[in-house]
Amino acid sequence: MFNSFGAIYRFTTFGESHGAGIGVVIDGVPAGVEFDEEFLIEELKRRRPGRNRFATPRKESDTPEILSGIFEGKTTGTPIGIWIPNRNQRSRDYSNIKDIFRPAHGDLTYFRKYGVRDYRGGGRSSARETAGRVTAGAVAKMVLREFGIKIRSGVIEIGGVRGKKVDFDHARQSPIFALDPDLEPQWIEIIDRAREEHDSVGGVVKVVIENLPVGLGEPIYYKLDGVLAGAMVGINGVKGVYIGNPDAHRLKGSQNNDQITPTGFETNNSGGVLAGISTGEKVEIEVYFKPTPSIFRPQKSIDTAGNPVMVELKGRHDPIIAVRGSVVAEAMGAVVALDMLLLNATRRLDSLKKIYQ
Amino acid sequence: MFNSFGAIYRFTTFGESHGAGIGVVIDGVPAGVEFDEEFLIEELKRRRPGRNRFATPRKESDTPEILSGIFEGKTTGTPIGIWIPNRNQRSRDYSNIKDIFRPAHGDLTYFRKYGVRDYRGGGRSSARETAGRVTAGAVAKMVLREFGIKIRSGVIEIGGVRGKKVDFDHARQSPIFALDPDLEPQWIEIIDRAREEHDSVGGVVKVVIENLPVGLGEPIYYKLDGVLAGAMVGINGVKGVYIGNPDAHRLKGSQNNDQITPTGFETNNSGGVLAGISTGEKVEIEVYFKPTPSIFRPQKSIDTAGNPVMVELKGRHDPIIAVRGSVVAEAMGAVVALDMLLLNATRRLDSLKKIYQ
Amino acid sequence: MFNSFGAIYRFTTFGESHGAGIGVVIDGVPAGVEFDEEFLIEELKRRRPGRNRFATPRKESDTPEILSGIFEGKTTGTPIGIWIPNRNQRSRDYSNIKDIFRPAHGDLTYFRKYGVRDYRGGGRSSARETAGRVTAGAVAKMVLREFGIKIRSGVIEIGGVRGKKVDFDHARQSPIFALDPDLEPQWIEIIDRAREEHDSVGGVVKVVIENLPVGLGEPIYYKLDGVLAGAMVGINGVKGVYIGNPDAHRLKGSQNNDQITPTGFETNNSGGVLAGISTGEKVEIEVYFKPTPSIFRPQKSIDTAGNPVMVELKGRHDPIIAVRGSVVAEAMGAVVALDMLLLNATRRLDSLKKIYQ
Amino acid sequence: MFNSFGAIYRFTTFGESHGAGIGVVIDGVPAGVEFDEEFLIEELKRRRPGRNRFATPRKESDTPEILSGIFEGKTTGTPIGIWIPNRNQRSRDYSNIKDIFRPAHGDLTYFRKYGVRDYRGGGRSSARETAGRVTAGAVAKMVLREFGIKIRSGVIEIGGVRGKKVDFDHARQSPIFALDPDLEPQWIEIIDRAREEHDSVGGVVKVVIENLPVGLGEPIYYKLDGVLAGAMVGINGVKGVYIGNPDAHRLKGSQNNDQITPTGFETNNSGGVLAGISTGEKVEIEVYFKPTPSIFRPQKSIDTAGNPVMVELKGRHDPIIAVRGSVVAEAMGAVVALDMLLLNATRRLDSLKKIYQ
Repeated sequence: MFNSFGAIYRFTTFGESHGAGIGVVIDGVPAGVEFDEEFLIEELKRRRPGRNRFATPRKESDTPEILSGIFEGKTTGTPIGIWIPNRNQRSRDYSNIKDIFRPAHGDLTYFRKYGVRDYRGGGRSSARETAGRVTAGAVAKMVLREFGIKIRSGVIEIGGVRGKKVDFDHARQSPIFALDPDLEPQWIEIIDRAREEHDSVGGVVKVVIENLPVGLGEPIYYKLDGVLAGAMVGINGVKGVYIGNPDAHRLKGSQNNDQITPTGFETNNSGGVLAGISTGEKVEIEVYFKPTPSIFRPQKSIDTAGNPVMVELKGRHDPIIAVRGSVVAEAMGAVVALDMLLLNATRRLDSLKKIYQ
Repeated sequence: MFNSFGAIYRFTTFGESHGAGIGVVIDGVPAGVEFDEEFLIEELKRRRPGRNRFATPRKESDTPEILSGIFEGKTTGTPIGIWIPNRNQRSRDYSNIKDIFRPAHGDLTYFRKYGVRDYRGGGRSSARETAGRVTAGAVAKMVLREFGIKIRSGVIEIGGVRGKKVDFDHARQSPIFALDPDLEPQWIEIIDRAREEHDSVGGVVKVVIENLPVGLGEPIYYKLDGVLAGAMVGINGVKGVYIGNPDAHRLKGSQNNDQITPTGFETNNSGGVLAGISTGEKVEIEVYFKPTPSIFRPQKSIDTAGNPVMVELKGRHDPIIAVRGSVVAEAMGAVVALDMLLLNATRRLDSLKKIYQ
Repeated sequence: MFNSFGAIYRFTTFGESHGAGIGVVIDGVPAGVEFDEEFLIEELKRRRPGRNRFATPRKESDTPEILSGIFEGKTTGTPIGIWIPNRNQRSRDYSNIKDIFRPAHGDLTYFRKYGVRDYRGGGRSSARETAGRVTAGAVAKMVLREFGIKIRSGVIEIGGVRGKKVDFDHARQSPIFALDPDLEPQWIEIIDRAREEHDSVGGVVKVVIENLPVGLGEPIYYKLDGVLAGAMVGINGVKGVYIGNPDAHRLKGSQNNDQITPTGFETNNSGGVLAGISTGEKVEIEVYFKPTPSIFRPQKSIDTAGNPVMVELKGRHDPIIAVRGSVVAEAMGAVVALDMLLLNATRRLDSLKKIYQ
Repeated sequence: MFNSFGAIYRFTTFGESHGAGIGVVIDGVPAGVEFDEEFLIEELKRRRPGRNRFATPRKESDTPEILSGIFEGKTTGTPIGIWIPNRNQRSRDYSNIKDIFRPAHGDLTYFRKYGVRDYRGGGRSSARETAGRVTAGAVAKMVLREFGIKIRSGVIEIGGVRGKKVDFDHARQSPIFALDPDLEPQWIEIIDRAREEHDSVGGVVKVVIENLPVGLGEPIYYKLDGVLAGAMVGINGVKGVYIGNPDAHRLKGSQNNDQITPTGFETNNSGGVLAGISTGEKVEIEVYFKPTPSIFRPQKSIDTAGNPVMVELKGRHDPIIAVRGSVVAEAMGAVVALDMLLLNATRRLDSLKKIYQ
């Protein structure tokens, strides 16, 4: 249960960053959906580090192998198994981190929890695992588009500099998935400077789900917004999340309440969710990423024996998580949207009668 | 599944705001725990509206009836059923809202989802349901204190005015659960003004879990922080959540990384969670509440036939959710902490050998 | 989780035999179903002991109180809470069993598991709890009949004497739910003799689900037959279960394979399930009940200190579980059928398109 | 959820009989357990068809590839992914069954459920999938033996001829896993005759779990016996299950009740389970397998267009499922035993205190 996500549309991942690869098993995919392998590869590319200088230049080719669940190009209703082999598995040199815990990583907590020290990179806690999430998200999108549901994302803040425009088309082709074209140069400069200074920066991602039917979300404990929040904060490096207008807690009711008209809501401060159920308006989510924990400056830590040490990391890492993270957040959003769509199909007698008659 | 929360320590609630009462069934409580009914009543009182002028003055006496699961003052390991009857169930006059949807409430989304119009107050989406959460949280605390784990909360921001001090002892006895004694008068004024203006205000709650053992949280999809985030955003009126330093996304890695020393972490920007697992430091959570949707000004809406109407609510409501909400957030934090404690007991061979031998 | 059953249509029970009552919370009921309270009371009556001399003559009036989830006579989609108070809770005299474990009961295993000795009757393991199951089954039937699905049961074997006829109409009005009218007198005699001899007898129940749509059941680990089997053997006193022709394991393939014709299957040895999925034929289940463990003869046991004792039970108990048990088995079958109906609504793209368009 | 089994120790399988292979992901394995790959291979060999003339002589080498979850020979607490490639995937000739439904197989029900016709062998419903179950069972046994728990199985009845002796040591090395050495020649003759006659036979398997601690099993809806029953009937070809003495329903209470003495139970009619909780005695289970549905005689069926056809299967199949099935049943028993062991670790305050202090 620990490594699975979702109620009906449910995926499970396995594999570690420096093991053989990352696997994902997707259960609950409705039968009869066209499987678009090209699209899956495309989505994995978006997540992949090394695609430009703003992301880790390690070569991860991320070629998914479809192991099951598809027949003659369509989903069969049986679980879809997908395997993404790790490249460059050649025995690397971990001698510098073998016995020490990197600050702000999971090294220490994994060791204390499991009593095992897998010193090879982040093991299971590595961002490598998010390839599994993006895979599950890509398959979810193949289903969602059958219903006209669309999900997009981009970066809205970097290093404390907040964007004003929200242009998803621009973000799609931006090297840093920038939502605000005007701020893109400044954001790139912030990232470049962090890299030069062997440091890293945090950022904020915006995810929007469009055309979601009214009525999705299962109150009280499987609400659309509650599940989305859990999904987002479960992503590596995410520390916070907000649904709708991120100033809501500073507003008055008279400012925040979305007035209702016969043609819809006048505003969307609610972010498309009321009482845990979709309103039919855009679902809007902000996701807050901490700066990359791997920085290339001396840091204080301890070794496995508990002695104080200075850590000096080597190698290369994205100086920002939020850029690649936006693709992961988008994927998790797609997974949640589909799961809610499926669950909601069981919630009314008249809906069920449309199927069974 | 929709109305249950938790994996091992799992509670289920039922009942509506204007029905007979609120029920909660708590499963997975370890056997042999002393049941402290006084404490439960105390906790329910803290949540109760009407305790002072900052909360709805409706009389909810919230006297819990213990229906099962306790024998000779101790938990037996069987489910604990608790029933909290609603008072004042006398047929109220709903004629003014019977056919209209209140803005920023769940009226519209519930109707669209279920095709049913239960016009009596908020029905299932009412804050009344949170009595069930507080009950489950109180029982969780009875177990947690056996392990020295403590959980506290308070309000850290109201109407955009942020507190600087964090004094949980003060909050405990403050009429508005204010964490900053210096700002308490100003915050009270903000609330009073909102009430006078028939308006409402948002706020921010801080929850802290102390003395949580290292190693709690189940990566990758049942992480401590992910589950906490889902639990918090699932609370009525909550739109956002943050684990640890809420500025993390604006910081550099060199600022945000908590340096490790033989005696612990030098700082706690992580909020006590790394890679989804507790570090042994305080778990710190911020919870963002929107302003109360019920305001007493004319608002635009539609009726059940889709015609435009002006809504004029009557009655009385807290002009702020965050105050009472802090007790609910604290309860959800306790539930998550206990659930993680139980799950973690199964995760190591050496732990299991301590039990079975 | 321990006290809940079902995936989407999911019920939770609480309460002990000599506590305040038995509660049941039913989640996942589709909105818009007419709630038939008379029918619920009728179903509870069928299960009730004391209805005739073949069942415990204790007076359990089993009047259900509907606490939530119904509005204006219809289900709202929110959880239905139902409470059935125990009568005769007056402090009984348990002195004769307070410190001893009754053979073939759960007394010993509950004590060893939980370290708690609730000596008042069976506590949670009592057949009293099955009132909760029958309640959940009755509500399931209210939904199933909207789809023309019917579920019936009766007793097909008592004390090793097997019936030849299967007449559900007769069973419905028979004092021992006898499926074979010809054997009814003999079966009654067997039961009466067991009672006179202070002994008890076992029996076999047959449950049939008619008109179940083709395609229900979720392979591989939530198959229709696997879930039915788990549901049945989880009932108090049930030791075995069989789906379809209970001689299948003695047959040859050429005898057991149901030949397929354009109008259906020529035989139904499969019991309406192939590969875990309903075939559209009748689902046929046999359920094997052990004899009532409470007999009124001296038996060897131990006390809580581990000393050997002779147990002499007092009071009255059904000398057969299978009779009342048939109503419980029927209820569990209804719950499983509905849960599968709901799950299956999510499994095909074309089904979903009928709902969302 | 459909393709996963277990609550804490939870495995998920994927893959079809004529696809690339069978995968299994095992979650919830405690950290620190020695991983015994030799043992896993050994277990898979026991299940493998083609090991002798009593099983399908197809060559399935069943070499498991360990993809994750193991580091330096021990479990790490992260999910263990295992992949078993299918051999002989070369495009076979399915022309004779491409458009027809084989009687007593899942062909028809899968098609009706999913609207998809994967005509290549049994697809997901094939016995090939049970390699995943045996894998999960083998890993469970690696943990169980740390606690001295042992699980064994064998065949106790073939073609209606019931064995009298129960010799697990003999069964282990018997070509047909025969529990009764005296009957082995007769049973072999029955199987051989069925093969010659292009027919098949049913059988009964006995599974015994030894040394299981008292107290395992979670009443009311996750009982040890209920979950075991569901696990067994979910296996391909299983139609029934019995816990304990399979004559219990024919006995009187005075015969069936196991008398309790200071040193244990005098008999074990209960099969080691009372009220859903292990008693400490041997857990004894009987599993009833139907005859192999694939027989090589003309059978009536329909094609995908609904027209009547005569089916003539080609190829080779075990004339009995129960032989290989015993290994699968044993594996499922191991999985359930471990899951219950883990769950029970969370059920008492004093147990938890042994871990957290």
